[in-house]
Amino acid sequence: MSQKPALLKGTRDFGPAEMARRNFIFSAIRSVFQKYGYLPLETPAIESLSVLMGKYGEEGDMLLFKILNSGDFLSETSEADYREGHKKMLLKVTKKGLRYDLTVPFARYVAMNRGTLTFPFRRYQIQPVWRADRPQKGRYSEFYQCDADVVGTESLICEAEIVAMIQDVFQLLSLEQYVIKINNRKFLAGLAAFAGEPGKEADLCVAIDKLDKIGVEKVEEELVQRGFQPDSVRQIMPLLALSGTAAEKLSSLRQTLHAHPEALQGLAEMEEVFSLLGQMGVPTDRLEFDPALARGLSYYTGAIFEVKALGVQMGSISGGGRYDNLTGVFGVEGIPGVGFSFGVDRIYDVMTELNLFPDTTFDTTQVMFANFDAEGQRYCLPLLQQFRAAGVRTEIFPEQAKLKKQLNYANQKGIRFVLLAGSEEMAQQKLTIKDMVSGEQELLSLTEVLPAIRARLA
Amino acid sequence: MSQKPALLKGTRDFGPAEMARRNFIFSAIRSVFQKYGYLPLETPAIESLSVLMGKYGEEGDMLLFKILNSGDFLSETSEADYREGHKKMLLKVTKKGLRYDLTVPFARYVAMNRGTLTFPFRRYQIQPVWRADRPQKGRYSEFYQCDADVVGTESLICEAEIVAMIQDVFQLLSLEQYVIKINNRKFLAGLAAFAGEPGKEADLCVAIDKLDKIGVEKVEEELVQRGFQPDSVRQIMPLLALSGTAAEKLSSLRQTLHAHPEALQGLAEMEEVFSLLGQMGVPTDRLEFDPALARGLSYYTGAIFEVKALGVQMGSISGGGRYDNLTGVFGVEGIPGVGFSFGVDRIYDVMTELNLFPDTTFDTTQVMFANFDAEGQRYCLPLLQQFRAAGVRTEIFPEQAKLKKQLNYANQKGIRFVLLAGSEEMAQQKLTIKDMVSGEQELLSLTEVLPAIRARLA
Repeated sequence: MSQKPALLKGTRDFGPAEMARRNFIFSAIRSVFQKYGYLPLETPAIESLSVLMGKYGEEGDMLLFKILNSGDFLSETSEADYREGHKKMLLKVTKKGLRYDLTVPFARYVAMNRGTLTFPFRRYQIQPVWRADRPQKGRYSEFYQCDADVVGTESLICEAEIVAMIQDVFQLLSLEQYVIKINNRKFLAGLAAFAGEPGKEADLCVAIDKLDKIGVEKVEEELVQRGFQPDSVRQIMPLLALSGTAAEKLSSLRQTLHAHPEALQGLAEMEEVFSLLGQMGVPTDRLEFDPALARGLSYYTGAIFEVKALGVQMGSISGGGRYDNLTGVFGVEGIPGVGFSFGVDRIYDVMTELNLFPDTTFDTTQVMFANFDAEGQRYCLPLLQQFRAAGVRTEIFPEQAKLKKQLNYANQKGIRFVLLAGSEEMAQQKLTIKDMVSGEQELLSLTEVLPAIRARLA
Repeated sequence: MSQKPALLKGTRDFGPAEMARRNFIFSAIRSVFQKYGYLPLETPAIESLSVLMGKYGEEGDMLLFKILNSGDFLSETSEADYREGHKKMLLKVTKKGLRYDLTVPFARYVAMNRGTLTFPFRRYQIQPVWRADRPQKGRYSEFYQCDADVVGTESLICEAEIVAMIQDVFQLLSLEQYVIKINNRKFLAGLAAFAGEPGKEADLCVAIDKLDKIGVEKVEEELVQRGFQPDSVRQIMPLLALSGTAAEKLSSLRQTLHAHPEALQGLAEMEEVFSLLGQMGVPTDRLEFDPALARGLSYYTGAIFEVKALGVQMGSISGGGRYDNLTGVFGVEGIPGVGFSFGVDRIYDVMTELNLFPDTTFDTTQVMFANFDAEGQRYCLPLLQQFRAAGVRTEIFPEQAKLKKQLNYANQKGIRFVLLAGSEEMAQQKLTIKDMVSGEQELLSLTEVLPAIRARLA
């Protein structure tokens, strides 16, 4: 019995062309991560629900893909449970879930291996994650995250290096139109205190995180709803919209918030990041201190980052921040760190829209031997392995087919050179090279062919 | 509330050292796949159960990890369903499952994209798969498969190339002690006919597949249980145990089975594979025609392969075969192909046991600037980015810590060179290079350091 094959909504196949482009992005990210001393880690896709649940808020718990227990999955349940409904049944029929992000598995790994890891520990992780979200344009049930974190240090050199790494990656990708926004949660905490609501930094962040979406007035309303005094709101909103250079903003805010040590601390950290970048010789013209940058996640405690591509409609393409307690949720206190993540799917879309992928991202076959008849095949087979041994990606068309079909195959696959061995070529111990791009043909002796191909590919 | 973090049984973290070794294997496999014209494909981890179920037999269906429907997963069920039990409930609470192998998703992909793919289509796929098996040594719930298949052709050049690819991969891995066993399902089908049971090739294969495990006598018993006549069994067992060269076995079997065209066809195909390898200049001394090789899977219809490492206790480390109807189960007939797979976890274990991993598989940081004080840090920071821009994997220890701690960190991370900038070095505009392997130190001027490092790393 056959059925019509289909993909699940929110999932995708990546065929050869997409894979080549995605690998181009992954390679750039990986090479930069490594150049800065980050080492690879992979964790399993399936984790215990006790590791995953309660880490992403109530909505996150709902969006976790949960795996049904094997065998008789009802064995721990009763009819009374069934009558009470799915919430009562849930943890009796499932104990495992799919990875929802790379941070919680990393925290689990650090907590489990803290005795053998050498700190500061720099790891990068490039793996898919899964979310049972309603699929829509640009939002998938299965997508890759590319994270780098360094834990076990509070050094702001790490923040400066993150800015440098972001710039290195986008330079490798020829993606030049973007801005890196930076802010600091300590500054925002001080701002909440300045507004007369010390400790309400989370409310402040949630509200101002929506500035782009709902505008100033709605954010002001929300802040009031969240218990801020209208007067205070009117005082802080202009501070979030300050213009000028980073130095000007820092100086102005330092004056205004001079009585709030936490705010001053956040501003000092930000200044230090700019200063370190200067010492490192890393340009800061794309780095913008945005006092209104908040980021959704509640666990950030220091610097926060977000990268926006300019000239295209797209959310942030990279982001991250500092946290002071990665593993507390697993009973291991006192491991601070800073990390960030590249949004590969969005970077892919931006690069496609801006036509930034080079042609050479496609690691396809470089040379194909055409196959006319048994004699020609015998003539070519010894050469085939010589080409491969020399590192040239080479095929022979596996069947004796019409030349048109074979050339069409080579064209479709983007194969640059086709080698032809007809009776004339064989009589002369030669081969004809056909360049599929220029259409030019050349007759060369058997010993000349490989060097000629290598020279043209170089 | 914190809990003790743990991995699920049958799953593993791969830390930096394991990742480096695994990537060494993956890179070798990938480079060979590409050199032979195979292009990458990735399919989603989660597939519709209608795609996955019924493809792996009843046991396979049970071993599929199934994902609970989101939200109220009981909404399609009734109390009567509940009373009837988990089998009745199953497909009402789950519609999705995790990929169980790479072949069925590949078949789905080919069936869905047959209109746009150019055949013959060569794809490779390196992704994890999941099986709800009882975890035990060497058997995991989550593990990688590395498959290459070419579909849309019956050319035996593809079989010959598979033998060549296997040899190329193991050469890159310096894994030299192995044998590639080859057989042909048509020969086995003819053998069943010769034994008076035409059409019973599946029974024959299932039984002789156990020769290694249960021995000749038990296999003979099983064949009789499966309906073969004891006399016939006694006739065919010696044929399975023939000794000699491939040519000798082929010649002997051709005589014995001269009246069975399907057997002769299988033997002719095998001979052709040897002949093609000869024409290609690929050595065949590791290739052994094993008339008793059967392979478990029922869908093979031509050549079958299996690779065994010698000198270690380990199951097959690679295997595959030809099939004549990849996509029939999805309603698309007539797409033949041949494919094979590397067992990365087993190859990893064999290479570990034989100590075959080179030290250089570890892409760790190459140079670390030690960090003594603020002045030294400022002195080193400009150099840091110069090193990275030159492609050297470089760190600065992010904190000002005791030298012993920093050197210990460098040692643990396998960093080759540590650069020291004390007051004396700074006064002379120099740096001391410490080689962490030899222990040697050398004082060099700032402009000499990078060229010296690059020369030593080369």
